[in-house]
Amino acid sequence: MEQRVSLITIGVEDIEAAAGFYEKLGWSRVDSPDGVIAFDLIGQTLGLYPLSALADEMGVDVATLGRGALTLSHNCRTKEEVAALLDAAKAAGAEILKPAADVFWGGHHGYFRAPDGTIWEVAFNPFSALGPKGEFRWNGY
Amino acid sequence: MEQRVSLITIGVEDIEAAAGFYEKLGWSRVDSPDGVIAFDLIGQTLGLYPLSALADEMGVDVATLGRGALTLSHNCRTKEEVAALLDAAKAAGAEILKPAADVFWGGHHGYFRAPDGTIWEVAFNPFSALGPKGEFRWNGY
Repeated sequence: MEQRVSLITIGVEDIEAAAGFYEKLGWSRVDSPDGVIAFDLIGQTLGLYPLSALADEMGVDVATLGRGALTLSHNCRTKEEVAALLDAAKAAGAEILKPAADVFWGGHHGYFRAPDGTIWEVAFNPFSALGPKGEFRWNGY
Repeated sequence: MEQRVSLITIGVEDIEAAAGFYEKLGWSRVDSPDGVIAFDLIGQTLGLYPLSALADEMGVDVATLGRGALTLSHNCRTKEEVAALLDAAKAAGAEILKPAADVFWGGHHGYFRAPDGTIWEVAFNPFSALGPKGEFRWNGY
């Protein structure tokens, strides 16, 4: 198994409502069939899909599917961007779980919960500069 | 907010046990401080972190954090690789939720649940060829 994630799929109640949040933050969807909404990321895609259909495809009981133990992080280029992005997320409908603050490992971050239930970290990591397209690698790119 | 995910963090009970599964599938960890294990992906990193510590950082009750509504997909270059990777995942300790099968949208896929609880899709999409490093884009790369 090569070290890559091709798609991140978020199973949601209402794909249009969920997409609206990311679009308010400036994201643009790509063409897709009815019933799925896709946003291209760097070398991968984030998809929004009805949770019940996802459970059916996987063959599991939808009631067993939860959120939050798997989180997504969006790293910023500067410390100041963290609070600004959390503000923008709140304005777009997110719940702020943790305001921007310094972290024990030397970075700066905060957390919001998107309307779709996904918990996002917004972070600045002074030890890992982002690449020209925003690429992140653990020990620098 | 730019369209990218810098880190995927999976909150788990035992980070070494969780990492062992991905290492059995051929992944290699990068250097990291004690208490976190990191695997570099394409332009992003997948991290394993204690679930209780993640809940503390986010300021939420750990009992509210669930799994499965957000899934990760690993796309293969050929249809035949799907069943082979599902077999390898089973041998490494995963539970097969759905064996390799053709899908209504014209692809071929299956699902496994990793020992850490994350649900992974293994897929072949004949409409989206992967890039030279395995990069995926919704409408081709």
